[in-house]
Amino acid sequence: MPRATLSRIQTPDFARSMATTSPESLIQQLQWRYATKQFDPQQKIAPEVWAALEQSLVLTPSSYGMQPWKFIILSGNAELRERLVPHSWGQRQVADASHFVVFTVRTEVTTSDVETYVERIAEVRQIDKSAVDPLKKMIEGGIVKGLSASQQHDWATRQAYIALGNFMTSAALLGVDTCPMEGIVPAKFDEILGLKGSGYATCVACAAGFRANTDKYAQLPKVRYSAQQVIEHR
Amino acid sequence: MPRATLSRIQTPDFARSMATTSPESLIQQLQWRYATKQFDPQQKIAPEVWAALEQSLVLTPSSYGMQPWKFIILSGNAELRERLVPHSWGQRQVADASHFVVFTVRTEVTTSDVETYVERIAEVRQIDKSAVDPLKKMIEGGIVKGLSASQQHDWATRQAYIALGNFMTSAALLGVDTCPMEGIVPAKFDEILGLKGSGYATCVACAAGFRANTDKYAQLPKVRYSAQQVIEHR
Repeated sequence: MPRATLSRIQTPDFARSMATTSPESLIQQLQWRYATKQFDPQQKIAPEVWAALEQSLVLTPSSYGMQPWKFIILSGNAELRERLVPHSWGQRQVADASHFVVFTVRTEVTTSDVETYVERIAEVRQIDKSAVDPLKKMIEGGIVKGLSASQQHDWATRQAYIALGNFMTSAALLGVDTCPMEGIVPAKFDEILGLKGSGYATCVACAAGFRANTDKYAQLPKVRYSAQQVIEHR
Repeated sequence: MPRATLSRIQTPDFARSMATTSPESLIQQLQWRYATKQFDPQQKIAPEVWAALEQSLVLTPSSYGMQPWKFIILSGNAELRERLVPHSWGQRQVADASHFVVFTVRTEVTTSDVETYVERIAEVRQIDKSAVDPLKKMIEGGIVKGLSASQQHDWATRQAYIALGNFMTSAALLGVDTCPMEGIVPAKFDEILGLKGSGYATCVACAAGFRANTDKYAQLPKVRYSAQQVIEHR
């Protein structure tokens, strides 16, 4: 089906529907995805598809909307990516996938971060900065003063995991394979990527591209607990 | 367009495409979503749509595939939901949204958790448990012995944030509004939901349903940093 014919789904039981994906398609894609171990290095993500995935990262929701992150994208740069492999338990996804995303977050959250954020709000919404003062005070109280630097880093890291979840689901919907990677040495990544002293630190990574025909993991049944085991209705 | 006509997208530049959503539709939906402050209490999520969202939670990827979580779903139960409102800074989304999801995670990760998990792998993949021994030892080394109880709890919490990201994106694709909620008092939630001593604790929550026509936040321009500010290409 050509893309142009995709439009909002209208069903009688879901009259105000803003959906562009059916429940069946969503589940099919989430079933299709798996942590790809072997990527086909020849298969590159099409530019317009990658642009949407980058945009999905930009659009990720975060606590207070603070976006305490930077996403580092490695697409070419074979030399740099090869240098990361030994600090990823030798996993080849780092070098072989079409794209490799390093999720980095603020190591602490300062008044200046909050200032930059409220300036952005004022800019985007074309309002006076003073109108955002209550929010500014709330974030300063809750995060800047309310948490230690280490807790701020943890808080920022949790936000990056929202981005990771959003990214993998977005990729699955677009037919792009991913492999989330916690098995990396963040300090070594920071060193190699020149992040030391930048105020940002690596927390997690994700490879994106297309599975190799030879990846035996693609054929294994997905292991999840049953809904009865992880969902409780109250 | 009736759901049955939705099928995989085939474009010349993306020949092996497994996509069911176009890049444009994905971004449109991620732009459409926002942290809904006011839900229409009369609008309920259709059962087949909710079933898919529950399934999206079940299918969420996690570190080692461990799924250290339970998702507590409140759909009816007005009395219980009203009791959570004062512990959510009075935010009415808790009570008014069609569904309210409380994300809970293991407060520590034990050998017994790993045992249960490898048994599940053996069951699903119909293999002998001994075949999963290397993975079992890796998880025991990395998480059970390698991390303190508090670090295990943090690790589990980060996994839940992947589920949160996946859930919100899945909902957006299905035309369902969400509001992620960190502004809750987890200890009070645990008390009210009877989680004390269960080995699970509340970490975050998310309301899901449909925006009220009167929610002024729906009209505000979304505030995100530009791609230039949060994406770096190397």
